[in-house]
Amino acid sequence: MDDILPLAKAHKLPEPVLKPVGVPHVEDSAASEHEPAELEAAPLSPRLAAYQALPVTKSTITHNYTPALAVLDADDMDKEELEARIVTVIEDYKEKLQLRTDHHMGYPYNLDFDYGPLEGLQKYCINNLGDPFIESNYGVHSREFEIGVLQWFARLWEIDVDDFWGYITNCGTEGNLHGILVGREVLPDGILYASRETHYSIFKAARMYRMDSEKIATLESGEIDYDELRAQLTANCARPAIINVNIGTTVKGAVDDLDRVLQILKDTGYNEDRFYIHCDGALFGMMIPFVKRAPMVTFKKPIGSISVSGHKFVGSPVPCGVVMTRLKHIKGVSSDVEYLNSRDATIMGSRNGHAPIYMWYTFTRKGYEGLRKDVEKCLRNAHLLKSMLERAGVKTMLNELSSTVVFERPREEAFVRKWQLACEGDIAHVVVMPNITIRKLEHFVQELFESRTRVSVAEAMQLAEDARALDDDE
Amino acid sequence: MDDILPLAKAHKLPEPVLKPVGVPHVEDSAASEHEPAELEAAPLSPRLAAYQALPVTKSTITHNYTPALAVLDADDMDKEELEARIVTVIEDYKEKLQLRTDHHMGYPYNLDFDYGPLEGLQKYCINNLGDPFIESNYGVHSREFEIGVLQWFARLWEIDVDDFWGYITNCGTEGNLHGILVGREVLPDGILYASRETHYSIFKAARMYRMDSEKIATLESGEIDYDELRAQLTANCARPAIINVNIGTTVKGAVDDLDRVLQILKDTGYNEDRFYIHCDGALFGMMIPFVKRAPMVTFKKPIGSISVSGHKFVGSPVPCGVVMTRLKHIKGVSSDVEYLNSRDATIMGSRNGHAPIYMWYTFTRKGYEGLRKDVEKCLRNAHLLKSMLERAGVKTMLNELSSTVVFERPREEAFVRKWQLACEGDIAHVVVMPNITIRKLEHFVQELFESRTRVSVAEAMQLAEDARALDDDE
Repeated sequence: MDDILPLAKAHKLPEPVLKPVGVPHVEDSAASEHEPAELEAAPLSPRLAAYQALPVTKSTITHNYTPALAVLDADDMDKEELEARIVTVIEDYKEKLQLRTDHHMGYPYNLDFDYGPLEGLQKYCINNLGDPFIESNYGVHSREFEIGVLQWFARLWEIDVDDFWGYITNCGTEGNLHGILVGREVLPDGILYASRETHYSIFKAARMYRMDSEKIATLESGEIDYDELRAQLTANCARPAIINVNIGTTVKGAVDDLDRVLQILKDTGYNEDRFYIHCDGALFGMMIPFVKRAPMVTFKKPIGSISVSGHKFVGSPVPCGVVMTRLKHIKGVSSDVEYLNSRDATIMGSRNGHAPIYMWYTFTRKGYEGLRKDVEKCLRNAHLLKSMLERAGVKTMLNELSSTVVFERPREEAFVRKWQLACEGDIAHVVVMPNITIRKLEHFVQELFESRTRVSVAEAMQLAEDARALDDDE
Repeated sequence: MDDILPLAKAHKLPEPVLKPVGVPHVEDSAASEHEPAELEAAPLSPRLAAYQALPVTKSTITHNYTPALAVLDADDMDKEELEARIVTVIEDYKEKLQLRTDHHMGYPYNLDFDYGPLEGLQKYCINNLGDPFIESNYGVHSREFEIGVLQWFARLWEIDVDDFWGYITNCGTEGNLHGILVGREVLPDGILYASRETHYSIFKAARMYRMDSEKIATLESGEIDYDELRAQLTANCARPAIINVNIGTTVKGAVDDLDRVLQILKDTGYNEDRFYIHCDGALFGMMIPFVKRAPMVTFKKPIGSISVSGHKFVGSPVPCGVVMTRLKHIKGVSSDVEYLNSRDATIMGSRNGHAPIYMWYTFTRKGYEGLRKDVEKCLRNAHLLKSMLERAGVKTMLNELSSTVVFERPREEAFVRKWQLACEGDIAHVVVMPNITIRKLEHFVQELFESRTRVSVAEAMQLAEDARALDDDE
């Protein structure tokens, strides 16, 4: 790793402004009836407001409604014809999936996985309903794999196997919903603090759970603004604090400094029984343990919970994730449900039992060392992409502890869609995952430059066209 | 269907009492530290209470902690050895899954499915993140299948394709969490009403969302006590009502009478803008449209939302479900999240894109007619099981519109676990799904009778043993 660290730290880029991009193409569809509202409108009353992270804005996207693939009408054809039609639909769909998988750059999903030996498991309805630690009477489950994976994470995050509780979730959002809920149950009067670049599920949780929340400004890097956090904590010192710490923000991959947050809590007089910290490590929570010199995210520090995604850095056919907290916190929020013969402190009742097997398989095959190598490769390739883009004058930013390369949003929408870039305002990003090879970066950069050239040439020609219109002589 | 309807209506069975079964085997593990609490304890303050349906009870189950299957340590062996070990683990596990699938009777899961042609899809990370109707930039999704399935349900539940909104969930609980949340957003000051035999996820939602709730008594059949509902609605008439209507309760398969609930709302002066009805149709919501003479659950009546499970009657390798509501309700609660290029009114962010394909495939292959036949078969076999059990003097109950056969809880715990029966208090049930054949019923009943005989003989012999101890002469 030494050859790639330290990475350049938070290269300058204009502070992105959240704004509607382009004029929304409003169709005469249902969504066109959305009430227009000012962007970043004043917060609505918590009792009346939408439960999502952001208020409904002018940029309501209405131009890409999904087409439907209707359920075929079996009565219209004989059995053989029906089977043939199904096969055609599925085979066409697989081709599309392969094409889209090949051109994916924008989301932090590791699409490079091979679960061949697990294929036969799709014959079974595997459901880990209820608590992972206590078997329910439903026998077709994979709790033994789930506990194995949780213990693997317990070792990673340094918590004794007798002191933790956790489960394998459906996604990072579920882990965040759980972590914030546990925080609220531990500190029912607590105020939720999170930075404005936090994933929207955190503020969604605050709306769902009817919690007061404070959205804290961010630094240029995307980290939480520590001074503003300190000021808010001081102002609200009469009430406990529930703090979301980002271990890699969604857009810029910025890591909030946990140690600094803990120091601020100490400085402002919050004892450990008056704060609860949830670490949202959706992507980078899986990577940071393998990065030298990164601040440790560990239960040896007074944090309450961590959530990560399983389909991001690890890679999996289905979205999944892990949430882990301290057993002592769960005791207050769980209860036995005799019907399941199982205590249930999860958000969901039924839970996908295939997901733990995917994780178990990957961790077994790669081991900590294999994951460390994957992290190293991602950080190195992120650095390479940044250098390649800068060589051509594209403004970029790469946080020191991140494989998320942020750059100017490409202006051709078709290019954005082809490469499935996640955009916010005038920035886009590529999240370099283990499936992003150097060859793929070459292909991407080549096409990006061609796209930029097309846009520039078109604009230059437009200037000439405009001039020609004014110049009657020509 | 005529030959099987009408089924016997709500045969008498002692009203089950929720009570701890046996003395919990408390191990010196973490769970043993659970505070003992009275069963059905007085509701705690909503701000301090657990968020689950039931308070923590004395019956804390601690005797069946799941064993862990540790992630193998790849550093300890060479690659070939590791691969061989993995194959062994997975093959052993598949055998266990098959055995458990063969002996499953208790949960309402249709384990009879064959998704052979879909097998290659596990190579792809299919994620329908965000709103199903609006494509996100992430291209590896299955929204076209999802919309097709939703439109199939819209036809089933009689709502115009322009008027509904919905999505494919991770399970019935997610559908319930969504329905109740929409209800709360529409009527922020509403009180939640649900019967005491309602699935625990509904009261879990009330705790999560900080809503006031009223638990209504039930009739012997398991239906909501209409008189008590009327009295509660009258008493609380100053505040709007959010009512959960069970389309098949979890334990007894009881169907709350939607028309009667609507009449009570009318009688007690609740106009349509002052109530919101969520229909929890986890299992039976998929079956009721195919049952002659069943009351219709339809959006032509003033209901707000319906949720059903996909892994229950339909059958699927992963838990899944559908929630559907009126588009007008969603407009208030959704917002665009530019990062996803997608509005998100779902509970989860990332969503399993394989689930919609399973449903699309089943609906296409079976058609409405195939599903009708499955329902007919289930109701007929439920009736058969009831008759077989009664012939041997086992007390049973079968609601008219249900395939859930309720009977005395078998007293041998090993039998309960072998057949994976879901139990509550002194009752157990078998949910007759399409995979429960007559042959399987024969096998089950045979073993049940053998189990009962063993228990009776053991008790009789114990009497003799006790008598012998008192009779010194022998």
